Amino acid sequence: MHRKLRMGQIGGSLDAFIGAVHRRAAGFDNEIELVCGVFSQSPEKSKATGHALYLPENRVYDSFEQMILQEKELPEGERMDFVSIVTPNHMHFPPAKMALENGFHVICDKPMTLNLQQAKDLAQLVKQSGLVFGLTHNYTGYPMVKEARDMIKNGKLGKLRKVVVEYPQGWLSRAEENNDYKQAIWRTDPAKSGAAGAMGDIGTHAENLAEYVTGLKITELCADLTTFVPGRQLDDDGNVLLRFEGGAKGVLHASQISNGEENALKLYVYGELGGLEWHQMEPNTLYYKTQEGQRLIRTNVGEMSPSAKAHLRMPAGHPEGFFEAFANIYRNFAFAVKAHMEGREADSLYDFPSVEDGIRGLAFIDTVLASNVSEQKWVKFVE
Amino acid sequence: MHRKLRMGQIGGSLDAFIGAVHRRAAGFDNEIELVCGVFSQSPEKSKATGHALYLPENRVYDSFEQMILQEKELPEGERMDFVSIVTPNHMHFPPAKMALENGFHVICDKPMTLNLQQAKDLAQLVKQSGLVFGLTHNYTGYPMVKEARDMIKNGKLGKLRKVVVEYPQGWLSRAEENNDYKQAIWRTDPAKSGAAGAMGDIGTHAENLAEYVTGLKITELCADLTTFVPGRQLDDDGNVLLRFEGGAKGVLHASQISNGEENALKLYVYGELGGLEWHQMEPNTLYYKTQEGQRLIRTNVGEMSPSAKAHLRMPAGHPEGFFEAFANIYRNFAFAVKAHMEGREADSLYDFPSVEDGIRGLAFIDTVLASNVSEQKWVKFVE
Amino acid sequence: MHRKLRMGQIGGSLDAFIGAVHRRAAGFDNEIELVCGVFSQSPEKSKATGHALYLPENRVYDSFEQMILQEKELPEGERMDFVSIVTPNHMHFPPAKMALENGFHVICDKPMTLNLQQAKDLAQLVKQSGLVFGLTHNYTGYPMVKEARDMIKNGKLGKLRKVVVEYPQGWLSRAEENNDYKQAIWRTDPAKSGAAGAMGDIGTHAENLAEYVTGLKITELCADLTTFVPGRQLDDDGNVLLRFEGGAKGVLHASQISNGEENALKLYVYGELGGLEWHQMEPNTLYYKTQEGQRLIRTNVGEMSPSAKAHLRMPAGHPEGFFEAFANIYRNFAFAVKAHMEGREADSLYDFPSVEDGIRGLAFIDTVLASNVSEQKWVKFVE
Amino acid sequence: MHRKLRMGQIGGSLDAFIGAVHRRAAGFDNEIELVCGVFSQSPEKSKATGHALYLPENRVYDSFEQMILQEKELPEGERMDFVSIVTPNHMHFPPAKMALENGFHVICDKPMTLNLQQAKDLAQLVKQSGLVFGLTHNYTGYPMVKEARDMIKNGKLGKLRKVVVEYPQGWLSRAEENNDYKQAIWRTDPAKSGAAGAMGDIGTHAENLAEYVTGLKITELCADLTTFVPGRQLDDDGNVLLRFEGGAKGVLHASQISNGEENALKLYVYGELGGLEWHQMEPNTLYYKTQEGQRLIRTNVGEMSPSAKAHLRMPAGHPEGFFEAFANIYRNFAFAVKAHMEGREADSLYDFPSVEDGIRGLAFIDTVLASNVSEQKWVKFVE
Repeated sequence: MHRKLRMGQIGGSLDAFIGAVHRRAAGFDNEIELVCGVFSQSPEKSKATGHALYLPENRVYDSFEQMILQEKELPEGERMDFVSIVTPNHMHFPPAKMALENGFHVICDKPMTLNLQQAKDLAQLVKQSGLVFGLTHNYTGYPMVKEARDMIKNGKLGKLRKVVVEYPQGWLSRAEENNDYKQAIWRTDPAKSGAAGAMGDIGTHAENLAEYVTGLKITELCADLTTFVPGRQLDDDGNVLLRFEGGAKGVLHASQISNGEENALKLYVYGELGGLEWHQMEPNTLYYKTQEGQRLIRTNVGEMSPSAKAHLRMPAGHPEGFFEAFANIYRNFAFAVKAHMEGREADSLYDFPSVEDGIRGLAFIDTVLASNVSEQKWVKFVE
Repeated sequence: MHRKLRMGQIGGSLDAFIGAVHRRAAGFDNEIELVCGVFSQSPEKSKATGHALYLPENRVYDSFEQMILQEKELPEGERMDFVSIVTPNHMHFPPAKMALENGFHVICDKPMTLNLQQAKDLAQLVKQSGLVFGLTHNYTGYPMVKEARDMIKNGKLGKLRKVVVEYPQGWLSRAEENNDYKQAIWRTDPAKSGAAGAMGDIGTHAENLAEYVTGLKITELCADLTTFVPGRQLDDDGNVLLRFEGGAKGVLHASQISNGEENALKLYVYGELGGLEWHQMEPNTLYYKTQEGQRLIRTNVGEMSPSAKAHLRMPAGHPEGFFEAFANIYRNFAFAVKAHMEGREADSLYDFPSVEDGIRGLAFIDTVLASNVSEQKWVKFVE
Repeated sequence: MHRKLRMGQIGGSLDAFIGAVHRRAAGFDNEIELVCGVFSQSPEKSKATGHALYLPENRVYDSFEQMILQEKELPEGERMDFVSIVTPNHMHFPPAKMALENGFHVICDKPMTLNLQQAKDLAQLVKQSGLVFGLTHNYTGYPMVKEARDMIKNGKLGKLRKVVVEYPQGWLSRAEENNDYKQAIWRTDPAKSGAAGAMGDIGTHAENLAEYVTGLKITELCADLTTFVPGRQLDDDGNVLLRFEGGAKGVLHASQISNGEENALKLYVYGELGGLEWHQMEPNTLYYKTQEGQRLIRTNVGEMSPSAKAHLRMPAGHPEGFFEAFANIYRNFAFAVKAHMEGREADSLYDFPSVEDGIRGLAFIDTVLASNVSEQKWVKFVE
Repeated sequence: MHRKLRMGQIGGSLDAFIGAVHRRAAGFDNEIELVCGVFSQSPEKSKATGHALYLPENRVYDSFEQMILQEKELPEGERMDFVSIVTPNHMHFPPAKMALENGFHVICDKPMTLNLQQAKDLAQLVKQSGLVFGLTHNYTGYPMVKEARDMIKNGKLGKLRKVVVEYPQGWLSRAEENNDYKQAIWRTDPAKSGAAGAMGDIGTHAENLAEYVTGLKITELCADLTTFVPGRQLDDDGNVLLRFEGGAKGVLHASQISNGEENALKLYVYGELGGLEWHQMEPNTLYYKTQEGQRLIRTNVGEMSPSAKAHLRMPAGHPEGFFEAFANIYRNFAFAVKAHMEGREADSLYDFPSVEDGIRGLAFIDTVLASNVSEQKWVKFVE
């Protein structure tokens, strides 16, 4: 099969932030083209977005149901190959389910669903369908995150002891949801966002990153969540003690009221032999520390793991950022879809977050919420 | 005119580095699509590249002459609208000239031409044709560079006194041109690269950045160029004293033998009221210093100039990098081409380097080379 | 009274690390001179140290009891004015008690005593004696820590919401206590160090810094301590959830097995109006962040609080470090001793940690230890 | 000889900045005690300073001549051993000369004298007297500067190619000399400061640091000096191209009008095998870069040179700063004086700037001034 994959997008109207991120990420490596979409629940907005994106009018739909059914009728090679779901959380599951049931691969924003039950149902559907499912936990797409994971897998840190993952943001320090700020409104509305606020929106990124890089699963945790902004319905800050399989301990804290912080996701991992540190806001450096000294591992300087190399596009010193990491998720997803179409196994070098990562995320949300109201110190992390 | 612009690329085969950068930058904002190309002087390589890019076979050409002539015959709306020239320097002028003469807009890598005379001839052709010409001095596409320029224009630094621009790289510390390293081979070959080495390849970026941000032109300079690697034909290091119109003084140094440096373009500007500092490798921060204190101006934090805002795509803390800055050049060029097609004046908010910048670059090369062999301290910068 | 204060030191033989720090700190501002000492439990070592320090032989003692009793017999103006206690923790209380009982002021290393009961007894003795007592929680001696505290006190951050204090070290990642490493041996020995390891040695610094800067007291906490190095008797890592009076939440984590970390004490405080960040290893910068932007507050740049200014000695850009901060504690203690001698009240601008800080530290240790073995989530912080 | 060395200070009254720096530096390692001084040309100020320093009245003098002659009459073991000269530049030579002629060792601030002739005369006097002379080019006292020098000496960088040394300050961006600002007044007065302004005050530090670390001497240079602040008599900014023995090239720029800069001395050295970078404002890190990667060499982390170790006092992560580096110069000078007194050769591990460094500094000033007014590109650097 020698052609670009065809993407249909659900959500992502012009005034949304993440829709355009997905579109740019999808198109970045010339492996995917947007061919259709339903960009808003408002048909007018959807049309306007499709027009601005130079889509033909007949490929801009009024509802995801319409899109899935009509696209299905188009001939192979014309119809979309997969859907990209970029709606608020409550609108992830319904289109994902229908797409899978109608034979379309799915890539979806996180958290994967509104609740854990949906997540498990979705996993079941993915399994039954045999189709490809990707989840945009985009931070695992950074080359230096791949490098960190590879170093740990290869024993550079020895047995792991401690993990600190922090994700402070400050943009919800005030009640922005009362200021007609779309991003704030749905994220603080439990009907759209789910049962958690900051913990769902960014805590799940932190959890995913920590588990991805360390290769260890959280086994129990102790959480203290707070809603600092008066009138807000969901947590806007949370501090969590972590315990990992194998005995490592850790801390996760995530916040949307850490005033003045931008998007400061950071990860620290320490083992018997050394430590690693990575900052999302300076993503092209990985700090590798031992008692003998400190190395800056920089993208495309010296030797790197095949995995890091496979997710880099530029020589050293030409900074790659958020879009490029996001594009790695889409490209890897596209490789897997192509492999599926061609009856091949996908190359594990080009990994991307899966439906299982999605289940972990929802289980994390459930566990921190349970812990938050528990008087017991530790709550088991159960999927 | 409601459609994407159609781009034909000259140069940029699969094993080239900058060709893919241009393609990703062009496609990034969904305003441009690649429709044809001649990607290599080898027809086989060109075909292989076109195939990998999913182009139809009949739009992959054997020579730029063939491409320009055959595309010209295609109906409007199918034929390419402009050419993107990403060949080594000696192959910039011939296709640019022919494209302009045949009615195609042109965007071209830097330095613009092999020598100053060609640059002037090209400027003449641009003027005569009335067509749009863009030059990919990509570093001026960064939002914080726009912000710096805006602050200076608005008097935040007062009258300027001192400018330091440095561009150290280390990748040519060894004779990589003997190691079958394509990037090194042509860059150190005067027939392909022009009369200057490091000064042409990156010194011109430094010169362009300094003049762009300060709004001041260099009036005279004193240069000391060196070829450190034995057997190399062109300079691989250069130190230059600068004098600007209005009395500001400065230093420019650029090097490809600054061992261990990646791509460390930095700019410092000081005026009567304050100073600014910007590092390409951490491009989302602009340091603004006065005797009262230091501010970090960060992309999308607090108030920014309209110009910076117009070149940003993400909220604070989501790092944008090299590709995004490059894409800004392409998008702005596309806006100008569209305006041209629609008979409108282009919006000056979306500026991009012009044929005049290209002349400055070649004049800079000539002036540093003249200064390097002069016993006089100062050599006038003459275009 | 116009003369330097006279210091007698207890502990701090030549092979100790902290003894020389105290001596340099004491002498730094020319307000204190070392006149006598008992530097080791070994009279030979004590003599050798006294000799190396150019002390007269008759002022180098064999025991603290001897020193206190004999110095007491010397005429005022010759005898020591105060003792500086720099022994391992278990040897803080006995000499402090005896010194106070014999009319000598005391400055002592932290944690103040071996356990909370001793701390309370010492506070009682201080109160009864009316003498000056100082505790070298040296990190509060940094000018930017003073500035942070002042900004918070003056409402620059608004009501506080979140505090993160972290203190990772890596020097005990291996069982250094088996390597004849004196610092490691006593710190991992409960008989000398007290009931806590990392939590006592550096966790108390973190607790003290957080409470000092915020002006808020911890009211309850939830701790998870670990001993990672096999055979070690005390915790070498700990993660703690914090709750403060007034509703602020927080995280404290301290570790001596964070491999490759040096002495990376960091503090982050967020309030309704902004946030602050300070790193001990780059102590001359305070990051002040709001949603409008980020300022670097630098020592002696622009306006600072009187408190920060009073703890600075150099113009901007001349880095002051660990010794200077430590010296601030000694100088301020000396000012208080002088005021006491002259019957004046001490100037509150020159503050230093007190016996109450010492009680908080020991209570912190007790509380984290209690929490660590509790199945209840929250344990009240009781002094 | 088992006692502290006795220092007499010339200059450094209470309102001077550098006098107290010298005193703290001298006393820091308990090897030197201040016993007498003439702190100001005003006997009242001198007395007030001596009083504040707890000196006996009879050891506070009215003139340096008086001090030298009267101290000379005191018995050995009571009289001062050496003088520390911390006056403005024009008052370095006379007391240094007289001290040497009367048998006192000398340590002196930089630049060493008012002009090159004095420097040569002083060197002659030092030679004739056989006494110890130290010059406080304090930046070479930093441990990481020692480490850099050692690495270069041991060939870690291979043959050197490029040196960049920059020293921007901003504190004279306005005419502070008109604001009753003592530091500014004498530094901008040729009668007190010498023929150069910024180039003398800080350019000489940059020159000294570059030559010290590289072990290479500047052979010729090309300078462009400017006086930006109207009415000022001396240069406040300068940019210089450098050529070193052995073929290395370089840039030196120093400025006191780089608005918003504090004291940002930085050094970059590149050789055939790697590069080094050091920042005075973060002095405990040395960046070591090769094409294989980048290491942060940190004070007391892992292996270091004996030279770096000999100039460190603290474990890793306890920042040492400006005072500690300054103290290294004094301590090493004291070791040399002791060795002299005891008829031993001084240990070369404890090196410090010499009268030859002083000559280089004055020759540098002469050369940049000559180059500045020359129309020839290169001016030889002649001592």
